[in-house]
Amino acid sequence: MNIKDIGEFGLIARMAPMFLKDLPEGFTGIGDDCAVIPRKEENSLLVTTDLLIENTHFLIEKISPEDLGFKSLAVNLSDIAAMGGRPTGSFLSLGIPHRTAVDWLDRFFSGFQSLAAAESIHLLGGDTTSSPDHLVINVAVLGDVHPAKCKRRSAARTGDIICLTGRVGDSAGGLKILLENLPRNEPGERLIQSHNRPQPHTSEGIWLSEYSSVHAMIDLSDGIHSDIQRIMEQSRRGAEIHLDKLPLSDDLRQTASQFGWDPASIGVAGGEDYVLLCTVDPNEYVRLADAFSRHFGKSLINIGAILPLESGIRYFSCGRIVKDDFKGFEHFSA
Amino acid sequence: MNIKDIGEFGLIARMAPMFLKDLPEGFTGIGDDCAVIPRKEENSLLVTTDLLIENTHFLIEKISPEDLGFKSLAVNLSDIAAMGGRPTGSFLSLGIPHRTAVDWLDRFFSGFQSLAAAESIHLLGGDTTSSPDHLVINVAVLGDVHPAKCKRRSAARTGDIICLTGRVGDSAGGLKILLENLPRNEPGERLIQSHNRPQPHTSEGIWLSEYSSVHAMIDLSDGIHSDIQRIMEQSRRGAEIHLDKLPLSDDLRQTASQFGWDPASIGVAGGEDYVLLCTVDPNEYVRLADAFSRHFGKSLINIGAILPLESGIRYFSCGRIVKDDFKGFEHFSA
Repeated sequence: MNIKDIGEFGLIARMAPMFLKDLPEGFTGIGDDCAVIPRKEENSLLVTTDLLIENTHFLIEKISPEDLGFKSLAVNLSDIAAMGGRPTGSFLSLGIPHRTAVDWLDRFFSGFQSLAAAESIHLLGGDTTSSPDHLVINVAVLGDVHPAKCKRRSAARTGDIICLTGRVGDSAGGLKILLENLPRNEPGERLIQSHNRPQPHTSEGIWLSEYSSVHAMIDLSDGIHSDIQRIMEQSRRGAEIHLDKLPLSDDLRQTASQFGWDPASIGVAGGEDYVLLCTVDPNEYVRLADAFSRHFGKSLINIGAILPLESGIRYFSCGRIVKDDFKGFEHFSA
Repeated sequence: MNIKDIGEFGLIARMAPMFLKDLPEGFTGIGDDCAVIPRKEENSLLVTTDLLIENTHFLIEKISPEDLGFKSLAVNLSDIAAMGGRPTGSFLSLGIPHRTAVDWLDRFFSGFQSLAAAESIHLLGGDTTSSPDHLVINVAVLGDVHPAKCKRRSAARTGDIICLTGRVGDSAGGLKILLENLPRNEPGERLIQSHNRPQPHTSEGIWLSEYSSVHAMIDLSDGIHSDIQRIMEQSRRGAEIHLDKLPLSDDLRQTASQFGWDPASIGVAGGEDYVLLCTVDPNEYVRLADAFSRHFGKSLINIGAILPLESGIRYFSCGRIVKDDFKGFEHFSA
């Protein structure tokens, strides 16, 4: 059974019950002109939206429908986390080629819904339509944050410690295996899983938002090399990154050695890890990192420091400056 | 100069100043992980999102970039209007083929911005990416409505008068001229303009939301024949529509006569007029219509009535029931 057999309204009838179940009091989800969300608090509203297009952002034969549904929501949740916000609702627009099997869509929705349920949010609306060739996915997520706790890219200060909430490079390693059709072993499969099913750091973002010693924050979608530039531009600062301090997994190191990759390059330039990068007051870093590791059972990893604007970006390895020839991922650049 | 010459960041740098100008106090627009919108009122939040894909929703050679930008926002504003809401902000995701000229994009943004400015809202965020073949546009719009004034599809009552805030069929007439490459005269050009540059009925929606005698409301995107069914389903009611009462323009009548079309069929089954259809307490209709025409200088047009569920849908012409063989527009049905 393909999408053209059930039509737009058939598809909505099929997916709506899953997403309308247990809506909170006062919410209107799928089924009217707009979603309606009651508001009573003084929190600011956060809004983020991401467009994913087949063959630009994903290859349909390289990811399961469950993982693609999960990831489409995850990348948006990661943007809410990067502001220190709590997600409150999601919206999904799908452009669907005629060839698409209804079973594929059911599995896509179930992957989306598994993450929505884990994050205690609902799918509140969206749009479905046909697409001539390629699958098109647009997800928008709303969130809430207290205005004083919102973490912006523009708030980094000279001397701040640059920290990560998790490992980098696994996702890019998994993508290399997929794109180059490399042989897969257990570590490789775990890298692919990191690429196809990234876990948004919602709890970490909310926890960090409580601390005024956390200044700027961003999620790593395009990679450290590209995303640190956005903090530098908006904060009008420079930065130094110590490649030896990058948190690289054993899976990545082992796979890099197997295929002759430079793991640090992958860690600094690879994208889609969706961990958080934040800048922290140097006088508070030790205390904060200590509380973080007690709370999460993992480290808030120090990878560098914010410098004055005129320093630009500097990479260090074994105490020496190394050439900056990493390239982050930019759309249109290929 | 094509999009591949300036890249994603070049495009954002190019468009951001237009959309960041005069942001209200406390708003964060383009440039961080999320848009931030301060909230202090008890209003409910409205959210709507529409996905438009080249060759499914528009033919790039049949619409100017300014009109396409305008229309992409208009169709979403119309959904906010259909709930009685006031728009507060917009989000634009674009999937852009490599061949796209930067001048084309500048003109698209200027059409989008002209309507945003007219409606006193800002573009607060979005996403830009490459698309392998077709232009992809996703717009999301937020709005505000007092919870007691929000107009839902589910609120129609038996006996309600079915009303329209404007004419129907012009847009579908314009589309027929475009698709069938028919010769164009002045009335035909005006129909095409109705199709390519629809005016959302924001003021009408806000005005109607103030009246408790207005029960259900929807905007006509797929046409009366299709959209009345959504009110019927959600309100568990039937409906009668009087084809003789449909508000058809002289332009449509003249063009229909020229090409041998049935103007009533186009008025009832044609889509994309983006006028509002509402159902009104029959005891209050005369008073309401009177106030409406004093305020807007045009009529709140009575085209039928809500019936009990078991009546289904009935169309009348010259006092007699006519066969219901209109087809509204449904994606995937082609």
